[in-house]
Amino acid sequence: MSQSSFHRIRYGMVGGGEGAFIGQVHRMAAALDGEFELVCGSFSRDADNNARSGVRCGIDSGRVYASWQQMLEAEAALPAEQRMEMVAVVTPNHLHVPVSLAALEAGFHVFCEKPLARDLDEASDLQQALSNSGRIFGLAHTYLGYPLVWQARELVRQGRLGALRKIHVEYPQGWLGTQLEADGNRQAAWRTDPSTSGSSGAMGDIGTHAFGLAEFVSGHRIERLCASLSIHAPGRQLDDDGDILFQTTEGASGTLIASQVCTGEENGLKVRLYGEQGALEWLQRDPNRLHLTLLNSPPQTLRAGIDQPGLDDVALERLRIPGGHPEGYIEAMANLYRDMARAIREGKPGSAVGVPDLADGLRGMAFIETVLNSHASDSKWTTFVDREPAQ
Amino acid sequence: MSQSSFHRIRYGMVGGGEGAFIGQVHRMAAALDGEFELVCGSFSRDADNNARSGVRCGIDSGRVYASWQQMLEAEAALPAEQRMEMVAVVTPNHLHVPVSLAALEAGFHVFCEKPLARDLDEASDLQQALSNSGRIFGLAHTYLGYPLVWQARELVRQGRLGALRKIHVEYPQGWLGTQLEADGNRQAAWRTDPSTSGSSGAMGDIGTHAFGLAEFVSGHRIERLCASLSIHAPGRQLDDDGDILFQTTEGASGTLIASQVCTGEENGLKVRLYGEQGALEWLQRDPNRLHLTLLNSPPQTLRAGIDQPGLDDVALERLRIPGGHPEGYIEAMANLYRDMARAIREGKPGSAVGVPDLADGLRGMAFIETVLNSHASDSKWTTFVDREPAQ
Amino acid sequence: MSQSSFHRIRYGMVGGGEGAFIGQVHRMAAALDGEFELVCGSFSRDADNNARSGVRCGIDSGRVYASWQQMLEAEAALPAEQRMEMVAVVTPNHLHVPVSLAALEAGFHVFCEKPLARDLDEASDLQQALSNSGRIFGLAHTYLGYPLVWQARELVRQGRLGALRKIHVEYPQGWLGTQLEADGNRQAAWRTDPSTSGSSGAMGDIGTHAFGLAEFVSGHRIERLCASLSIHAPGRQLDDDGDILFQTTEGASGTLIASQVCTGEENGLKVRLYGEQGALEWLQRDPNRLHLTLLNSPPQTLRAGIDQPGLDDVALERLRIPGGHPEGYIEAMANLYRDMARAIREGKPGSAVGVPDLADGLRGMAFIETVLNSHASDSKWTTFVDREPAQ
Amino acid sequence: MSQSSFHRIRYGMVGGGEGAFIGQVHRMAAALDGEFELVCGSFSRDADNNARSGVRCGIDSGRVYASWQQMLEAEAALPAEQRMEMVAVVTPNHLHVPVSLAALEAGFHVFCEKPLARDLDEASDLQQALSNSGRIFGLAHTYLGYPLVWQARELVRQGRLGALRKIHVEYPQGWLGTQLEADGNRQAAWRTDPSTSGSSGAMGDIGTHAFGLAEFVSGHRIERLCASLSIHAPGRQLDDDGDILFQTTEGASGTLIASQVCTGEENGLKVRLYGEQGALEWLQRDPNRLHLTLLNSPPQTLRAGIDQPGLDDVALERLRIPGGHPEGYIEAMANLYRDMARAIREGKPGSAVGVPDLADGLRGMAFIETVLNSHASDSKWTTFVDREPAQ
Repeated sequence: MSQSSFHRIRYGMVGGGEGAFIGQVHRMAAALDGEFELVCGSFSRDADNNARSGVRCGIDSGRVYASWQQMLEAEAALPAEQRMEMVAVVTPNHLHVPVSLAALEAGFHVFCEKPLARDLDEASDLQQALSNSGRIFGLAHTYLGYPLVWQARELVRQGRLGALRKIHVEYPQGWLGTQLEADGNRQAAWRTDPSTSGSSGAMGDIGTHAFGLAEFVSGHRIERLCASLSIHAPGRQLDDDGDILFQTTEGASGTLIASQVCTGEENGLKVRLYGEQGALEWLQRDPNRLHLTLLNSPPQTLRAGIDQPGLDDVALERLRIPGGHPEGYIEAMANLYRDMARAIREGKPGSAVGVPDLADGLRGMAFIETVLNSHASDSKWTTFVDREPAQ
Repeated sequence: MSQSSFHRIRYGMVGGGEGAFIGQVHRMAAALDGEFELVCGSFSRDADNNARSGVRCGIDSGRVYASWQQMLEAEAALPAEQRMEMVAVVTPNHLHVPVSLAALEAGFHVFCEKPLARDLDEASDLQQALSNSGRIFGLAHTYLGYPLVWQARELVRQGRLGALRKIHVEYPQGWLGTQLEADGNRQAAWRTDPSTSGSSGAMGDIGTHAFGLAEFVSGHRIERLCASLSIHAPGRQLDDDGDILFQTTEGASGTLIASQVCTGEENGLKVRLYGEQGALEWLQRDPNRLHLTLLNSPPQTLRAGIDQPGLDDVALERLRIPGGHPEGYIEAMANLYRDMARAIREGKPGSAVGVPDLADGLRGMAFIETVLNSHASDSKWTTFVDREPAQ
Repeated sequence: MSQSSFHRIRYGMVGGGEGAFIGQVHRMAAALDGEFELVCGSFSRDADNNARSGVRCGIDSGRVYASWQQMLEAEAALPAEQRMEMVAVVTPNHLHVPVSLAALEAGFHVFCEKPLARDLDEASDLQQALSNSGRIFGLAHTYLGYPLVWQARELVRQGRLGALRKIHVEYPQGWLGTQLEADGNRQAAWRTDPSTSGSSGAMGDIGTHAFGLAEFVSGHRIERLCASLSIHAPGRQLDDDGDILFQTTEGASGTLIASQVCTGEENGLKVRLYGEQGALEWLQRDPNRLHLTLLNSPPQTLRAGIDQPGLDDVALERLRIPGGHPEGYIEAMANLYRDMARAIREGKPGSAVGVPDLADGLRGMAFIETVLNSHASDSKWTTFVDREPAQ
Repeated sequence: MSQSSFHRIRYGMVGGGEGAFIGQVHRMAAALDGEFELVCGSFSRDADNNARSGVRCGIDSGRVYASWQQMLEAEAALPAEQRMEMVAVVTPNHLHVPVSLAALEAGFHVFCEKPLARDLDEASDLQQALSNSGRIFGLAHTYLGYPLVWQARELVRQGRLGALRKIHVEYPQGWLGTQLEADGNRQAAWRTDPSTSGSSGAMGDIGTHAFGLAEFVSGHRIERLCASLSIHAPGRQLDDDGDILFQTTEGASGTLIASQVCTGEENGLKVRLYGEQGALEWLQRDPNRLHLTLLNSPPQTLRAGIDQPGLDDVALERLRIPGGHPEGYIEAMANLYRDMARAIREGKPGSAVGVPDLADGLRGMAFIETVLNSHASDSKWTTFVDREPAQ
């Protein structure tokens, strides 16, 4: 029987066993467009969970590994046509750097969950490793996979809004309003534990999303900020809430809100941009609508769909179906996977066009460090951290 | 290397080549949860299109067949562990019955696009064939895969709304407002051609969705109706719009609107139910919200998400991720695929729990026939067709 | 002390005592723009209620009359500069015609609540009386006072939507879902009693609003319709719900829904128009937004406000304040009062520009008669009643 | 002819001539419920404008005064039963204090536009004057007249939200995004001129609204804040935009945004409160909806209307009509007038229950001073000004 010239990119997964959230999203996103095939995994330190997860994913039991170290070693030893090509790192934060580093050094592409690391310094060796590897590193800022986020950015780039004056971004959640980590909730437990989550809680977990989205869409870079963090649940060690003022190098100012104690909020990521000539608003929970108001004109609503008017190629190529058939969060993640696939096929090392990369990850870590610096400071403004991670 | 005990269900596809819409949705939906593997296809009568589609789907070229007849024959001849198990029929309407019939007779499960047939009589042999086959037949009424549609139905079943009085369902689209079929639009061309679409245009294409949704959620059955259809684009042969009054056996009344000439509408499927004790509203383009108003209480909004309050198991088991991460149309279709997979694994013939079945398909055809009867009649009420398809 | 050259138009009120709803709206609307002064009234047959209402309205007790007949007689006898100039008729339906007729004959302008009469025939003498009187008659179809309703109509008139194809109008309410009339609710009692309400319940009370709005905005006239009415509360004598299909003389078709048993609905009047070139949607509960979608363009939202882009004079002159300061129902009614005032000052008899008039009222009654005819008929279509009221 | 025992409260107006905005709102609001009668005014320094405004308001020309000083003097000399009882001060900010002070000293009640003064010190003599006068002083924070704002406050007071953690309030406008003051726009001109507007622009004009709303609904008091203001239009002297972090004495924190350069925004005042047990959101442009989410429950929406479930007396008594008939901005202002009327009739000096009073006004001025202090400071936190105005 003859073979197809097309091959699915073989990937392995570290983390994402039963009870995890984001690993399953990665698997669905990777499967959606048929670009990837999950061939191996080290899903959980719990052997039973690991085995069950392997079965559920349809992986040969021989490629379900007890540890990520074993996985890297064993896969590297396989023939090239069987060997996994990319590792998806979907562990708690503290393993992002160790796994990514080892995977790159072992010659694998990496697609890693955010935030990049527990803190800026931990990420220090990644840049060199990536450079040496000739491989591609992508960071899973899922929200940057939404078609209308790209459309928003494109409108800014085209100058439709004129010079930006205000950027307001917010990411309210409510799920950590009570002390879930004390009730055995695993998602809550590792996110609120500095040893697994890193130096920040809400700001690291979702503040980085808000930050990344704001900079991505606006094209601006935050120059200085003023942060006030807080902890609401008794006994919690990391921030579960914070408000920030900021100013950008390009002359805009605004606010960033990230909270996990906003009772009743699901996942309310929203960004608003106001320029001299127009304004944009996008809300993640209604991702197929982009609200555009041009100066002295009635507001209009751009709608997602491959047949919808007013969209540019950057949005259209990230859409799959006609208007009125909602695409969502998994599809957004799938767009990042699709762009990873394209880059891997093309073979150009470093970054994948369309996918947040190591530089974005480092900037996110600098954001966290800046926020923590500011929170600890009595000064109004704290300059954005501009340094290489310590070696 | 040892084998996993889990296997993906092997399926083949008829239709869905480049330029088609729904075939790609099926492939994404089938892939999403890792339950299916596409192993063969006959995607297009155009040989180049067919071949390219096969490559794009990662199928061995030897299993990309020039015709669906060849596909059924060749696959039936393969060893059981290689042979496809299910056929996805995603052709224009006129092939639904012939392909399904032949596939059942050849021993394959069938998951078929809606409407079931071009008219009620065409479907006549399917019931016997299905019964003889010991296989499973599912119908792709995608909207019945949405979690909150199941939640809505569950609330009705629980009596939360009391006895239903009013059912209003509508499905306005705008894309056929101009004569796209004359401009080379393939989707428009086959849908407006009686030889490929069947006896009805808009009512068959989307009216059946509205009808199916209304009956599914309400649990009521339409007893009689009054239909007025129209054709707006010059030269078009099939209805592109229609309005219907109806009454149900269980004592409710209401309206059904289906139109493809409502300029500016995307895909506005909406259902509203009003009972003695409460009311529900669900809108497909915002599928993760279900609006519930109980008598003498403020309206509330049930939100989709595996962690969201107020949801019953029928909704929760059709959700994948926590609230605030939108799941959409592909996920709804994937729910039908998941239920097909479960039924195939369980081996009980006939229908798959959770998936519209042949009886639903026949009822949809009876709906179309009733609507056409009513449109042709001067009488206010036309009784719902209650007959077996002609043999 | 010198006198202002401006004078407030003196009006009297029939009906609208304590416990009534719409009388108070009229008084607020009449007061809002300072064009009217309430100088007399016959608010209630209950003497105490009547007296208290007079006090509350700041009227001299000598001009609070025991009956509307007395009021007309006594006021007609006053000197011209004291005498009321206009009567506001805010009684239950059965008094609309008798009071209006007598008021016109006594030389007063009339602003009357809708529907015009209990049935078409009852209105027979009004036309002649109005013609003889040289006075002005206005009908309080409040919704036709909303600025964006006028804007919608203007967009249709300008041809922005192209030829209209579909008109869908609905007016769901829920307040009569239970048998309130049996619980002493006065609003419910007179509306569900044929002797005070007339030949129809919901269709007369709110169906006429939906009908009037649809014809007003579209400029079309319903040519024939198919109605199905129902009664849901036990023991109720008049329709509390109905669904209608219709076709217009100008070639559009659509649906009209009016119901008072849609649990949870407040006052959901909504109109949608679909034309070859564009579509409009307006929802009464969010009256300061008008949704406009032009063919192949993103939807836009026209916003109310004297400083808002995209509005024409017909809307601007009915607005009082800049955008973002919501104007509502009372302001809509006040627009009708303002137009009545202008017409009274100008002195041209018959109708007031901007205010529904007797012809509109008669057409509303013809609508009710047509609906009742259709409901009683087994034929699909019933031609719109086109006759003079019986003399 | 006998007299009614009810009398309308006679009031005069300072400011509000043609071309003004808020004066007309006051007149409509005062008229709405029939509690007030406008008997005199000094509407404009422009004699023609003043005269025309008087005619338009139906005032005897003898009581249209060339200056507010003349008005106070002349009215004070009239017999008690003719004399105005209250002055509505609707001038630019710089006259609020002088007119109010003189009016109180002349024995009149005062209802004054916000902000109270140009700065905190300017307000120094008001307290003593009010105390000496035995009269009532009210401040026109219109948004505090909305029924659902009271409902929101009531829910907080009842503990339905639990201890409040976060308060986010924002007031984006877009109308000063361009330099309107250079184009002859009078509203823009006085608001951007320190001599008429005071020490702050946007923060004084609308930041005080946001501040007042947040404190009113939450019952919290801001303890310290961090403000960053900016000026965007070239040549403008006063802030047209600002972002603030704050913490309350009671332990909540949050953000306050006030801007007049948010292109496309109308008047987007919004407040959100998050407590341990629930959350609230209210948006001024959709004032008849209050969004309430209780912990682990689906969100619900309280709807305005005298017949709507879930409302407490504080809301119900500020509503006029049943649900679904929108009440808006004028009605909110009218609620303040109604409460002023009640207080005046009751005769208790100082404040009117339900109306923001002098203490609220002084607190608003302290807010402005604190914001300006913070803006000028390099420290993160600036303690809320807690001092008496300088004498």
